[in-house]
Amino acid sequence: MDLEKYLHKHIPISSSIGVKVEISSSEKVVLAAPFLNNINHKQTVFGGSLHAVTTLACWSLLHINLAALFQESIQIVIASSEVKYLAPVTSDFKAECLHPHLDLWERFLTTLRRKGKARLQLNAKIFEEGQLCVDYSGVFVAISTRKYCL
Amino acid sequence: MDLEKYLHKHIPISSSIGVKVEISSSEKVVLAAPFLNNINHKQTVFGGSLHAVTTLACWSLLHINLAALFQESIQIVIASSEVKYLAPVTSDFKAECLHPHLDLWERFLTTLRRKGKARLQLNAKIFEEGQLCVDYSGVFVAISTRKYCL
Repeated sequence: MDLEKYLHKHIPISSSIGVKVEISSSEKVVLAAPFLNNINHKQTVFGGSLHAVTTLACWSLLHINLAALFQESIQIVIASSEVKYLAPVTSDFKAECLHPHLDLWERFLTTLRRKGKARLQLNAKIFEEGQLCVDYSGVFVAISTRKYCL
Repeated sequence: MDLEKYLHKHIPISSSIGVKVEISSSEKVVLAAPFLNNINHKQTVFGGSLHAVTTLACWSLLHINLAALFQESIQIVIASSEVKYLAPVTSDFKAECLHPHLDLWERFLTTLRRKGKARLQLNAKIFEEGQLCVDYSGVFVAISTRKYCL
């Protein structure tokens, strides 16, 4: 099932938010959402929607990468998040999550294979006309049902 | 207009989430939301929904208090938030925000009246069967169009 269908089916609030998948590669995930579904009383985008779409972008990037590497299903749990709302978002918006640095990624995979559980910080950003409006980071925990011998 | 109608009208995603106002006093705001609107692929509540409802609980508490104290409209902007997801939420849930300590509140009001702008950290929590599942804090900035002479 493609990512957009998966999100709308399994996380129905993503459908209410109007999440569309623009890019879903192992290197980069870009999720778009329309202004009108997510307005607040100040005619800007509600902070909760900005946080939700950045969270989904990070979760999706990790999901895509783990699905490509592991035969068994890896559970992904979010442990914590921090978000800085640097400027209001006033139009349709996109949240972009890039693959983390390779040394962090390799350390994460090694721990996951060795211990069956590992945590990874991922970042997502929302820009409007070149200005950084939302700077999100989330700590995700991946849990495997199998332990590997390295 | 009462708080629930206000939220649903001006922040329509709060209606999709199914936010209901249980308590809306100057001392405490409790917002409830149903499990089914907010499920994820693991059959727990989506972290983005947990974050959104805690954000709305804090915003509402500040909105109620400022509306009671100021004749002019005070703009409330969220600057940042942090959330710890300590345990999954697996049923209908409630986010509770309590009035901050009075010394913090008085300092916030003094700055707002003197400078026309002040920031305040507010916390909201979600419990399930007595267990703390979500621990949220947000920094909100209040902006007045008028400066007072103290």
